[in-house]
Amino acid sequence: MTAVSSSVEPTPLRIGIAGLGTVGAGVVKMLRDNAALITARAGRRLIVTAVSARDRTRDRGVDLSDVAWCENAADLAAHPDVDVVVELVGGAEGIARKIVTGALENGRPVVTANKALMAIHGAELATLAQKADVPLMFEAAVAGGIPAIKTVREALAGDRILKVGGILNGTCNYILTAMRETGRDFADILADAQKLGYAEADPSTDVDGVDAAHKLAILAGLSFGRPVVFASVYIEGIRRIGALDLHFARELGYRIKLLGIARQHENGIEARVHPCLVPNTTPIAQVDGVFNAVVAEGAFVGRLMLEGRGAGEGPTATAVTADLIDIARGNAIPVWGRSTDGLTQAVALPRAQFSGRYYLRLNVVDRPGVLADITAVLRDDGVSLHTMLQHAHARETLPDDSHSVPLVLITHHTSEAAMLHALRHIAQLKSVLDEPAMIRIEGD
Amino acid sequence: MTAVSSSVEPTPLRIGIAGLGTVGAGVVKMLRDNAALITARAGRRLIVTAVSARDRTRDRGVDLSDVAWCENAADLAAHPDVDVVVELVGGAEGIARKIVTGALENGRPVVTANKALMAIHGAELATLAQKADVPLMFEAAVAGGIPAIKTVREALAGDRILKVGGILNGTCNYILTAMRETGRDFADILADAQKLGYAEADPSTDVDGVDAAHKLAILAGLSFGRPVVFASVYIEGIRRIGALDLHFARELGYRIKLLGIARQHENGIEARVHPCLVPNTTPIAQVDGVFNAVVAEGAFVGRLMLEGRGAGEGPTATAVTADLIDIARGNAIPVWGRSTDGLTQAVALPRAQFSGRYYLRLNVVDRPGVLADITAVLRDDGVSLHTMLQHAHARETLPDDSHSVPLVLITHHTSEAAMLHALRHIAQLKSVLDEPAMIRIEGD
Repeated sequence: MTAVSSSVEPTPLRIGIAGLGTVGAGVVKMLRDNAALITARAGRRLIVTAVSARDRTRDRGVDLSDVAWCENAADLAAHPDVDVVVELVGGAEGIARKIVTGALENGRPVVTANKALMAIHGAELATLAQKADVPLMFEAAVAGGIPAIKTVREALAGDRILKVGGILNGTCNYILTAMRETGRDFADILADAQKLGYAEADPSTDVDGVDAAHKLAILAGLSFGRPVVFASVYIEGIRRIGALDLHFARELGYRIKLLGIARQHENGIEARVHPCLVPNTTPIAQVDGVFNAVVAEGAFVGRLMLEGRGAGEGPTATAVTADLIDIARGNAIPVWGRSTDGLTQAVALPRAQFSGRYYLRLNVVDRPGVLADITAVLRDDGVSLHTMLQHAHARETLPDDSHSVPLVLITHHTSEAAMLHALRHIAQLKSVLDEPAMIRIEGD
Repeated sequence: MTAVSSSVEPTPLRIGIAGLGTVGAGVVKMLRDNAALITARAGRRLIVTAVSARDRTRDRGVDLSDVAWCENAADLAAHPDVDVVVELVGGAEGIARKIVTGALENGRPVVTANKALMAIHGAELATLAQKADVPLMFEAAVAGGIPAIKTVREALAGDRILKVGGILNGTCNYILTAMRETGRDFADILADAQKLGYAEADPSTDVDGVDAAHKLAILAGLSFGRPVVFASVYIEGIRRIGALDLHFARELGYRIKLLGIARQHENGIEARVHPCLVPNTTPIAQVDGVFNAVVAEGAFVGRLMLEGRGAGEGPTATAVTADLIDIARGNAIPVWGRSTDGLTQAVALPRAQFSGRYYLRLNVVDRPGVLADITAVLRDDGVSLHTMLQHAHARETLPDDSHSVPLVLITHHTSEAAMLHALRHIAQLKSVLDEPAMIRIEGD
């Protein structure tokens, strides 16, 4: 907190931005539109001095005539007029990794919005940052405008975090919300989302849960003090959620959300991303559409939920700018919340060690004895049933004039190992027509 | 971010705590229970070296035998074994103010949970802190375990905040939630809350809205860069909310919450605390019981909501400890988010400049012409009606054998000046039996 005298202007913070997509252009706009405000808050001016992007001619709605243009983005890492490098290129490898590594090796602070890079190479980058004694900031990498990283790494620094996660992908939350509200199928709603710009042309990173898993791995790393081996995070997307599942979920008092969940156990760290049934009455069930929610639970603080926009120009630019102001103010926090001395990555618990309650939807032949067969399998595998639902109205006639009917089962708390065992046996029953659908239940 | 070598232990941060109530004892517990974690995160040990409290003999569940005891709390400000003073005495004047002022004058960082002190003397204390170039931290003063101050002062530092506020008092939220769930009256539920420890023996600071106003004034000061003159904040508590209002609110699709609301307008800062009808479908309507919620809306970030426990040992200790770790890490932010040079306090807009939609509940004589009289008054004062509700089932017989009936009116957007004018005229009508009840509508 240095007093700002009106006669001598403090040195401005000179910023180089690699990547001028929506977020990059948003950062330039924010730094200009709010220049007076930001100067007052940071104690000095924040100015963009150099930029780099693929296409120099594209109109980004911001005037870049007084800014140096680097043809090669990696040159920003050593540019003479740059104090801080902002990496907004994206991707875990290639140019993004080169820029961040290069800047840190040159002893320059880095701000990045790159979740894949931090999730996969976070341990190595933290070591570089500590060696150079410069901050590596990445608030924008998790949940856009929600201060997830600041909350976990600073606000909860005194507490032992037991659980962290939430709704970490707006595309999936938009699709699941629209499926629930319209009763329409995944493919339909995805096509709409693509038209509206809520989903990419290739939606797999979002709908297959990878994007949420990147963010979860970062949150787990911050919460438990060491990055998680990304490949060990269990990931399951939302492509297999059917309109019927949303129908049954509603009937049973649940909503379906793609959740990231990380917990600290005595025998290791659990980290998983998959669709979940969450009770209607929980706060996270109310978070709809493109909104994200980050939940953290601490031994002392209890349950904390942060809800806001997880993507888009304005929210993400706000996160990047907050990091820049922290740097301008001279504040820094170790990358994973503590020194990297002796830092090792944590391998997440294997799926066989998960446990919980499960929702199963089977398509079965509608004839006597089928229920007895299924319940016998569950009994033999040690899975006990809580609820069973069967709806005659969803009955369909099969080619051989027999009928199929959906059957929904909710289990008591059980191990995932037992559940998978039972599922294999159930799938082998002749009276079970399709691959059974399984969704985990969370929060009750 | 200083590398911690394993051979030389960095200097510990020595803490003096004034006030050993629930929160003070919680901080001591947290620093001890989580000592290894906190040392790793802060880069050095945080140790309590001196304390002061009224009663030395009381059992607080923590061993204080190795800690210096100051008979006079003000001595902590100059104690030779103290680097940071934690003020948990409370109250805007007296010993609390003396300790904080004294510590800052001695060039010592201060952490306080004192909302009244910061709301009323925040400008003067900020000037002292800036003069001494030491941090004055107060995360625990607003909404307990919710990182409200960190979010507004750091995470949103790049954005222009348009609106800030939320559910800032857990006692009021508990009472309003219980009134809704049980249909019982304010006095009944308050008595229960007192038995359960959710309300004080003298509940006025909570139920009259003063505590929420302290927190709102702090949030407004942080959001808009200068503290608000506390006496200019409009405050209205929840004592006049009746079981009937909760009944009608439910019927109309609303919940009733005590909200703090601060907005930046071209002509000044609006800051007010009062009960509100909020639509059922809004996220803030779902925040029930003792939970708090802080909402901030920025030009770039959009709407952000933080929900968690606003009081109690664990959450408040978490906030105090986060401030201590920030200080141990060497991080500091100016008290009101910017330099105090030329700092002046803002006077909040007077009530006559408010505007919005209003809920009115009248108790009227059930006879022809009454509605015509009331609607004529509203028309003459320029207030236009959106909805009207009258329930025969709530009809009561009066001593003269006529009947009274509750009448509920919802207005369109109007100025509070016009509304107050109309209310005065309505109260003068012979057919209107009791003082009209007016509740503002927020968020639709």
